[in-house]
Amino acid sequence: MINYEPFFSRAGQSMRESAIRKMGTVLADARDMVSFAPGYPTESTFPWDEFRAIADDLLRGRQGTVLQYGPTRGYRPLLESITSIMTSRGIATSDEHLTVTNGSQQGLDLVARVLFDPGDVVLVELPSYTGAITAFRNVGAELVGVAQDADGLNLDALESTLKGLRAAGRTVKCLYVVPNFQNPTGLLVGLEKRTQLLEWAGRHDLLIVEDDPYRDLFFEDVTRESETRAIAADDREGRVIYLSSFSKTLAPGLRMAWMHAAPALMAKVEMAKQASDLCNSGLSQQMVDQAIRRGVLAAQLPRLRAHYASQRNVMVEALHAAFGSALVWNQPRGGFFLWASLAAPLDGDTLLPLAQARGVIFVAGSAFFVSGNERRFIRLSFSSPTPERIREGVARLALAVTDAVAAVAASAAPASR
Amino acid sequence: MINYEPFFSRAGQSMRESAIRKMGTVLADARDMVSFAPGYPTESTFPWDEFRAIADDLLRGRQGTVLQYGPTRGYRPLLESITSIMTSRGIATSDEHLTVTNGSQQGLDLVARVLFDPGDVVLVELPSYTGAITAFRNVGAELVGVAQDADGLNLDALESTLKGLRAAGRTVKCLYVVPNFQNPTGLLVGLEKRTQLLEWAGRHDLLIVEDDPYRDLFFEDVTRESETRAIAADDREGRVIYLSSFSKTLAPGLRMAWMHAAPALMAKVEMAKQASDLCNSGLSQQMVDQAIRRGVLAAQLPRLRAHYASQRNVMVEALHAAFGSALVWNQPRGGFFLWASLAAPLDGDTLLPLAQARGVIFVAGSAFFVSGNERRFIRLSFSSPTPERIREGVARLALAVTDAVAAVAASAAPASR
Repeated sequence: MINYEPFFSRAGQSMRESAIRKMGTVLADARDMVSFAPGYPTESTFPWDEFRAIADDLLRGRQGTVLQYGPTRGYRPLLESITSIMTSRGIATSDEHLTVTNGSQQGLDLVARVLFDPGDVVLVELPSYTGAITAFRNVGAELVGVAQDADGLNLDALESTLKGLRAAGRTVKCLYVVPNFQNPTGLLVGLEKRTQLLEWAGRHDLLIVEDDPYRDLFFEDVTRESETRAIAADDREGRVIYLSSFSKTLAPGLRMAWMHAAPALMAKVEMAKQASDLCNSGLSQQMVDQAIRRGVLAAQLPRLRAHYASQRNVMVEALHAAFGSALVWNQPRGGFFLWASLAAPLDGDTLLPLAQARGVIFVAGSAFFVSGNERRFIRLSFSSPTPERIREGVARLALAVTDAVAAVAASAAPASR
Repeated sequence: MINYEPFFSRAGQSMRESAIRKMGTVLADARDMVSFAPGYPTESTFPWDEFRAIADDLLRGRQGTVLQYGPTRGYRPLLESITSIMTSRGIATSDEHLTVTNGSQQGLDLVARVLFDPGDVVLVELPSYTGAITAFRNVGAELVGVAQDADGLNLDALESTLKGLRAAGRTVKCLYVVPNFQNPTGLLVGLEKRTQLLEWAGRHDLLIVEDDPYRDLFFEDVTRESETRAIAADDREGRVIYLSSFSKTLAPGLRMAWMHAAPALMAKVEMAKQASDLCNSGLSQQMVDQAIRRGVLAAQLPRLRAHYASQRNVMVEALHAAFGSALVWNQPRGGFFLWASLAAPLDGDTLLPLAQARGVIFVAGSAFFVSGNERRFIRLSFSSPTPERIREGVARLALAVTDAVAAVAASAAPASR
């Protein structure tokens, strides 16, 4: 057989598997595993019957656009529907600013290809979303992390990081942020901080990539919708590239998301998408468009907010009961994730194989840090298991922590012979 | 507003719009245009009712996999179905060799990202498929064209081109070929030539990217299935990356295609795909899988062969009647395209706006040449218009040619004042 090493591009050589997707493989291989790893939505919440009725109508209607190639930017009526959604979020947009993407992951990838050369720096939150990290690194961008306070990025740290990089001659093009119920921390960035970030980006001529998949999933007991206001809503200069998705609110299996950016940027994104996959699925696009026009999406949202808040309650209660104060976390105010901190000397990477042996998996927090050696966190997703399985998983996690404590004690004890 | 130029990557700066997709825009803007431009399949041939029954079953069944995130490589039962198809084509494969892609365009893009650095050379046929050209150029690869004979690439030209490039210190990693009913020429590469290309690639340690979307659409009056044997079928070294698609046989709107490569290559492709779009649509994958398992695809193929052969007949007869010997072409033996050569001093680029004014469009052949200034060809797709529209389009094309001849005569005449 051939030695392929000499054939790989530098990008190919340096590609790495996503820690989250890897957990997906573990899950697929083991049937009784409780998974707190991938942020999968609850399958029973998908609007199955509504999609069935829609698919039936679309395929009965035999409009060519359903099964034919389509425009790279997307099916025009869907772009109109997305424009309405954007308006309801306070973001002024138009066809020229929009493209439908094959999941937000494709949006991140297209942004990376259009903007970043090898060595360019992207500033990211510490911790940050692994999917973005991977997409940006695949084009050779270097990610530099900036510490967060309780309301989002620390502005002093941001300022001094940027200054240091520019003084060293580095090209810093953009800041990547997930302001609403961030993956992995669940953090909700404060409104004032959002304004400050936009001003700061303007002052230093940086772009902002705002990734916003979870904004509709705020938990009404602790969060008001007004607190999720997008940075893009106040952007008057075309400085914000905004991404959002139907994966968490309708179904990820349709691979439907969208991106908004200044027309000059979007023209390049369109060319990149053309070369990447020509166009989106007509059927998926029209299913989503019909789900919006028939009110299916609007009906989903309050139900989903209540559902995921309840899932969070189950996990939080189970964690309290099992761990008391041995595990520390911030109350999630929306989204899919609980970000927990283990007490020293435990860490997420060491705990993971022990947890797996006990029948539960999560994502070790270290995967989300682009710099430093921060290993004490774990990301627990409460979005997909049933309440019963959440309780079972937390019980297993508690056993795994006991195993880990015992292992630490054993290794600290003097050798016995 | 911001000046975005300093923000673009080198790839972003150099991106260009595909000539074919551009024609798609022209088409969308003009209602009465007859389009011989994009290679769109005939919409009435899509298995609408069968897809409707399948979608109904899948959405009624509420199996999470239909609407949930899925494995990056693809839905396992679909990979099994694809393995059967590959076996019927004489290509030994397995899960480790395969990934489902979002159309073959994504396959080309992933190959490009995993293999090519800026400046790497890819050898291509003259002319070659624009989608591949764009995907390869987007990562900075340089395409070098090699002349074709009636049975495919000229081996002497191939040999001397490679020697010249390597003598000049260039990195040449692969040869891209479309052996069956090539887009744009419709050419069917001879079986002996296929063997020779594989041997030649082995001798010079090159990979072959074999793009095979049209192999099922051979015209039975002039072509036997055995003449479409894939180069990959005789590959014992893992030298051939093979791509094929359901876009031409089931429906392009599902965006379902696949790629086969050596496991070591495929592992990298999987990582690239993870960062690119995470996974394929569950619904699309399961619709295609069911279409295969229920015999829908098998039933389509003979019907499609007869249908497109008949479409070809309509175009060929109309061209004979309208042009006599003023237009020259090879009889297409399969696929969607007729590649015609204009008599000097006419050329495709000059003819196109005149044709558009007459209400018919095609793709000017120059778009398919990566080198040289070959402008006398036009690509006419007979795949999508009705027979009546094909005849109308050819009549309009004849008028446009008359206009072009008159314009040439006028510009050659002495100035009148």
